[in-house]
Amino acid sequence: VARELLILAVGRLKDPLLERASADYFKRCRGRFAGKVREVKTLARLKAAVPGDATLVCLDPRGRAESSERFARRLETWLQIPSRPVVFAIGGADGLDQELRDRAHHVMSLGPMTLAHRLARLVLTEQLYRAVSILEGSPYHRG
Amino acid sequence: VARELLILAVGRLKDPLLERASADYFKRCRGRFAGKVREVKTLARLKAAVPGDATLVCLDPRGRAESSERFARRLETWLQIPSRPVVFAIGGADGLDQELRDRAHHVMSLGPMTLAHRLARLVLTEQLYRAVSILEGSPYHRG
Repeated sequence: VARELLILAVGRLKDPLLERASADYFKRCRGRFAGKVREVKTLARLKAAVPGDATLVCLDPRGRAESSERFARRLETWLQIPSRPVVFAIGGADGLDQELRDRAHHVMSLGPMTLAHRLARLVLTEQLYRAVSILEGSPYHRG
Repeated sequence: VARELLILAVGRLKDPLLERASADYFKRCRGRFAGKVREVKTLARLKAAVPGDATLVCLDPRGRAESSERFARRLETWLQIPSRPVVFAIGGADGLDQELRDRAHHVMSLGPMTLAHRLARLVLTEQLYRAVSILEGSPYHRG
């Protein structure tokens, strides 16, 4: 059974170009997990949408910025826990809040620069695909 | 006279979606600078294409990863030097080399994660637009 991986994001991407680029990366990850994106309107709805049994990862500027290799190892661990979906939470313009960060199993940052959340979603899916490539030793990643 | 800002990149983007997203950000910067992208086939050609009088900024994992605000201040300084084009160099899969990094006025990193260079170009143009927004106090950046 393929693991489930969900990106929960506040706000609509409203950009078919970026949406398609993002979906392309997800497709190429299918050997490792079934990836989905779900958009919600508010942070309150995002919180309600996180399954109780999920491994929760928050994207937040206060989180740890790490290498793609380290991220790949973390992902490997998260995917190994049976029957626990892996959920990435991305806030809207106002970000996430302390309560959600406290609930998270991991808080990650994509780096010190502020990134438009639509780009954060694209970068995250690229990092997920890169992580799969690292774990499988495929030539995509030559970091 | 508008300042000239050039992104010199090794390799073709080959992705009309990302190209368009990137061009959109550049268009919105026109009040501050005229942005152009030039793709070259090899690192040798990239080196030859850097104008002798340019302010050269290299994108490299060994560079400094800084906040968008700091980047905006740097950009402001670079754009203030009259008659000096600002040139950002982005390597292909093999990156840049020591000689070019030594020639650079600044070496910057987008963060500790390895990013596909096609995404690095998109993220860079978004950061340039964000920098312009920061310098102009526009609401785009609420970092």
